[in-house]
Amino acid sequence: MPLTADQANYLFAVMRLGPGDRVALFNGQDGEWTAEVVEGSKRGGVLRCLGLAAPQLNPPDLWLLFAPIKKERTDFIVEKAAELGCAKILPVQTEFTNAARIKQDRLQAHALEAAEQCLGTYVPEVSDLQPLQKVLKDWNPERRILWGDESLVGPAQTLAGVTPGPWAILVGPEGGFSETERRQLRALPFVTPVSLGPRILRADTAACAAITLWQSALGDWR
Amino acid sequence: MPLTADQANYLFAVMRLGPGDRVALFNGQDGEWTAEVVEGSKRGGVLRCLGLAAPQLNPPDLWLLFAPIKKERTDFIVEKAAELGCAKILPVQTEFTNAARIKQDRLQAHALEAAEQCLGTYVPEVSDLQPLQKVLKDWNPERRILWGDESLVGPAQTLAGVTPGPWAILVGPEGGFSETERRQLRALPFVTPVSLGPRILRADTAACAAITLWQSALGDWR
Repeated sequence: MPLTADQANYLFAVMRLGPGDRVALFNGQDGEWTAEVVEGSKRGGVLRCLGLAAPQLNPPDLWLLFAPIKKERTDFIVEKAAELGCAKILPVQTEFTNAARIKQDRLQAHALEAAEQCLGTYVPEVSDLQPLQKVLKDWNPERRILWGDESLVGPAQTLAGVTPGPWAILVGPEGGFSETERRQLRALPFVTPVSLGPRILRADTAACAAITLWQSALGDWR
Repeated sequence: MPLTADQANYLFAVMRLGPGDRVALFNGQDGEWTAEVVEGSKRGGVLRCLGLAAPQLNPPDLWLLFAPIKKERTDFIVEKAAELGCAKILPVQTEFTNAARIKQDRLQAHALEAAEQCLGTYVPEVSDLQPLQKVLKDWNPERRILWGDESLVGPAQTLAGVTPGPWAILVGPEGGFSETERRQLRALPFVTPVSLGPRILRADTAACAAITLWQSALGDWR
C-alpha cells in the first residue's frame, strides 16, 4: 500500500518509524487494521497489511445540525460530534449565523483526526453549509429532530419517552434562533424541543450535552 | 461603586458605554443586578446600582475532579464545568499527568468568564493543583465520586438508580489512570465507576459528558 507525502512525513519524520514497526490503519469502512512498515522516507513509503485488529464501530443513526460560530468553537463542535458518535454533521445557516461559508475540507479533517485520536474507525461526513430553510424544506419527516430550545430554560424534558429511530440534533448559533425560525420549528411535527437545563449554554456546550443525552437515552451508550 | 482599570477599559473603551447606559452586574452571591453608568473613562468609572434583576442561580452540590491536560483543553474543561453547573473545580495530579503546576488564577478567570457569558451568576471556585492521592486520603466519604472509567467501554451504566446527595465527577488525563490508581479507586466504597459509551473519549469530552449525565439524572436539569 503506497502512502501520501503527508502520511509518510508523519510516520517517518515525526514518529520516526522504520522497517518492521507496526501501525494501526483504518479506512472508515472495515475497522482497524494492523500494518507493518516495509520501507519509508519523508516523501513516501510502503506498508504491508497484516490483518484486521478490530471491527468497524459504527455510530447510531444520529445527525448533528449546527450553526457555525467562531472558528475554534466550530472545530470543537465537529470534533465532539465525531467523538460522541454522530453519523453525519450538517452545518446550517440560520438567521443569526454570521458565517456565509465554511471550510468544509478543514472540518472534515477535524472529524478524521477526532476519529483517529479516539480509536474510532468511523469518520462522520461533514456536509457543506446549507441554509436551514432549505434543509427543513427537503427534510425526510421519518428522521426526528431534537431541538435544543434555549427558551426552555428550566428542568430538561426527559428523553426517556421519545421514539427510537433515526434522529438529528439541532443547535443554534450564539443568540439562538430568530422568532420566525422558532415559530417554524415549533410547527413542524417531526421537531421535539428539549431544554438543556437552567443555565444558558454556549452553542458548543449545547451540542455536547444534547448528543450525550440522546446517546444515553436512545443511542449506543445504553 | 468604583471600577478597576480592566473593567473600565472594557466598558468605556471596548463597549463604548456612556453616562446613563445600563449594565448587568453580578457578585457571585446575590444574583444579577442592574446598574447605570454615572461616569467613566478608560482608566476608571462609577456605576450606580438600580436593583436586583434576577436572583442567584446556584448549581447543585457537584464537584469536578480532573487531571490537567494541554492548555487549551484544560481551559475548556473549566469553562464547560462552569457552564454545565459544577459548584467547585479541583485539578488533581495523577500518575499520568504531565503538568506539575497550573495557573490557578487564569483558570479561575475562565470560570468567571464562562459564568458571565452564560448569564449565570455563580462562579465555581477553582482550587490549586493537588495530588490525587492526597485528595482521596482527605476525602469526606459522604460525597460520592462518579469515576469516568475508560476501561468500561460499552453501554454506559445508567445513573438512574444512584443515590442523590453531594457528588464529585472524576475524569483522568489522556492515557487514563495507572493500574495502581485504578485498583485504589475500585477499592474505595464511595467511588462509582461509570462507562461513557463505546468510543474512547478525550478527557475534555469525558468531563462534559459525565457532568451532563449527572445533571440530567441527579442535578437541576431534571
